[in-house]
Amino acid sequence: MSKIIAINAGSSSLKFQLFEMPEEKVITKGLIERIGLNDSIFTITVNDEKQTEIFDIPNHEVAVKLILEKLTSLGIIKSLNEINGVGHRVVHGGEVFYDSVLINDEVTRQLEDLSELAPLHNPANIVGIKAFQNALPNVPAVAVFDTAFHQTMPESSFLYSLPYEYYKKYGIRKYGFHGTSHKYVSTRASEMLGRPIEQLRLISCHLGNGASIAAIEGGKSIDTSMGFTPLAGVAMGTRSGNIDPALIPFIMEKTGKTVDEVLHVLNKQSGLLGISGFSSDLRDIESQASEGNERADLALEIFANRIHKYIGTYAAKMSGVDAIIFTAGIGENSVLVREKVLRGLEFMGVYWDPKLNQTRGKESFISYPHSPVKVMVIPTNEEVMIARDVLRIASI
Amino acid sequence: MSKIIAINAGSSSLKFQLFEMPEEKVITKGLIERIGLNDSIFTITVNDEKQTEIFDIPNHEVAVKLILEKLTSLGIIKSLNEINGVGHRVVHGGEVFYDSVLINDEVTRQLEDLSELAPLHNPANIVGIKAFQNALPNVPAVAVFDTAFHQTMPESSFLYSLPYEYYKKYGIRKYGFHGTSHKYVSTRASEMLGRPIEQLRLISCHLGNGASIAAIEGGKSIDTSMGFTPLAGVAMGTRSGNIDPALIPFIMEKTGKTVDEVLHVLNKQSGLLGISGFSSDLRDIESQASEGNERADLALEIFANRIHKYIGTYAAKMSGVDAIIFTAGIGENSVLVREKVLRGLEFMGVYWDPKLNQTRGKESFISYPHSPVKVMVIPTNEEVMIARDVLRIASI
Repeated sequence: MSKIIAINAGSSSLKFQLFEMPEEKVITKGLIERIGLNDSIFTITVNDEKQTEIFDIPNHEVAVKLILEKLTSLGIIKSLNEINGVGHRVVHGGEVFYDSVLINDEVTRQLEDLSELAPLHNPANIVGIKAFQNALPNVPAVAVFDTAFHQTMPESSFLYSLPYEYYKKYGIRKYGFHGTSHKYVSTRASEMLGRPIEQLRLISCHLGNGASIAAIEGGKSIDTSMGFTPLAGVAMGTRSGNIDPALIPFIMEKTGKTVDEVLHVLNKQSGLLGISGFSSDLRDIESQASEGNERADLALEIFANRIHKYIGTYAAKMSGVDAIIFTAGIGENSVLVREKVLRGLEFMGVYWDPKLNQTRGKESFISYPHSPVKVMVIPTNEEVMIARDVLRIASI
Repeated sequence: MSKIIAINAGSSSLKFQLFEMPEEKVITKGLIERIGLNDSIFTITVNDEKQTEIFDIPNHEVAVKLILEKLTSLGIIKSLNEINGVGHRVVHGGEVFYDSVLINDEVTRQLEDLSELAPLHNPANIVGIKAFQNALPNVPAVAVFDTAFHQTMPESSFLYSLPYEYYKKYGIRKYGFHGTSHKYVSTRASEMLGRPIEQLRLISCHLGNGASIAAIEGGKSIDTSMGFTPLAGVAMGTRSGNIDPALIPFIMEKTGKTVDEVLHVLNKQSGLLGISGFSSDLRDIESQASEGNERADLALEIFANRIHKYIGTYAAKMSGVDAIIFTAGIGENSVLVREKVLRGLEFMGVYWDPKLNQTRGKESFISYPHSPVKVMVIPTNEEVMIARDVLRIASI
């Protein structure tokens, strides 16, 4: 038995989850928010009860020390020696990392080199890694990448129709994200279907505040909707997804914004928020749409329609599909979005049951038993994938 | 019987085709190239024979006068009075023109207003219109728009997931192009199938140096791959099609280019040319790929793969498809591209015959007779659509 802690470090936050492995039992989990700001918030769940405290936490070093101190002082573990491994979510592994990796100085250097591909995410991930290295210098740490699962994409999927030297010189290609989630739900789908993953063609819809669709053939990602960055693909909470690239100079000219300001609009003021004009949260959109708000209804239609189209896209890509998976906040919980996404796919063998579709947040089949294409809701669990990879990669 | 001349004016070129209507008989056709440069080239086909002459043609006024002078001096018509109508291809009709329109001063003003949406095309179209107005002031002229056919798209198809006010303030939306071609081939498909267009779901693949795919339901365009400009959608001869929009600032930073220079790369140095590194012409790409050039093979794969995926996308959008149409230079002539596009679509009812697919440049079915989804090659004819619209709109 081993205790593994899974870490997801953002620029001003740090999430953790402590597992008993290989049982995959969650011993505790928690979150620190507002690191580096005043009144940082520390939340931890002990015996299914949430505790919250306010501290001043100036940086990730202090955050990590606080977490480790709390784990012992609250009696969750007796000593830090009980922690056998640390797993870090890292957003971008570029083309260097096609699997999780044991972290050493060379790996950390490579992660720093990759920061230019994910300037908003990788630096925060690295800060988290270093803070744990200082606090637990003798405990093996493993980096688990959002991009790694998609490294199996063929060149004809990942390459843009741009001058080829942009790929060779600058690493410009489709990387794809949410890989840990797509991998988890596709593995679970294979188990739930009772069929080896090598024989399956799956379309995985990870629909959260960020959203991406993946085509998974024989357990390998062969295409995905996000691209060089997580901006591409379907419409999201605040992200535009794909647009005509020629719109960027046009918007710059019309609004007087710089290219970076336009990029900010595409990342932070578009998607559901941009169309509806009032919220990036699908629950607000659904609620307003049901009360007759036309812009909310339009946002909902566009959101679902883009996903619906990707299902056709990836079915064509794989010459058919065996199962469609919905996961993450919206995928697990929005009956309405799933309905809109699935409607009219009978021509490709998708027969879904409106009653079964009433499910929220738990593993279930929502297709009719006779449907050639199965449709499933599978809550994602990126943390357990991180813990599993720590066990596998660090050979604990 | 009427004689109608169809005109397609570019910035330094002018194509014309003279029809006997309503028989749709081509009396003559021709082309002037290098207008405004030295040694302009005038080409005209008389009795199936091409004649070429070199002139100095400083502007479109002179070009139009030359064409009209040649029509009489070569004995094609006895007098200019025989010309009953002029039809002009206009690229961008914005949201103002959802059908062809009789040109008057008000319309010309509106076209000038729309030039900011198509700065490379509309101004040349307007120059052509004015030159004919001066030369044939009493002959009715009709503008036929590339965008008009797509004006039936619902808001959920044409709206981007951008701040909604960008649509209201700046007209930012998907317009779509090649509408005259998509309309022509879908009308022909209905005739060839012997089924009313109101009952058909068609996917039209216009594959030329520019390429766009359209979903046509009941004779109406409900979605298309090009967007605000003709840059969006699939990979083309020199255009990138869709890319992650975040790549634009990244490329600017890496290469030191301005946003307009990057846009130029996306429009002129990408697509088949960008990937292959040597040509934007699919015939060169096919020939090099067959000799083992890997980059040519990759360009071909990416080109066909993106179209293949759109067929899935639009089948999902229409809840199935009755016929797939290939048109324009590549669509009519590339056996290999059609093969790569169609391969693996059996799951949605597409059964095509490799022998029938050997066809080039003529109307034909390439699906097996039993195939639920028909696949057709239909040479496009934008000029005859223009002539038909002149007849209809000007009530000649």
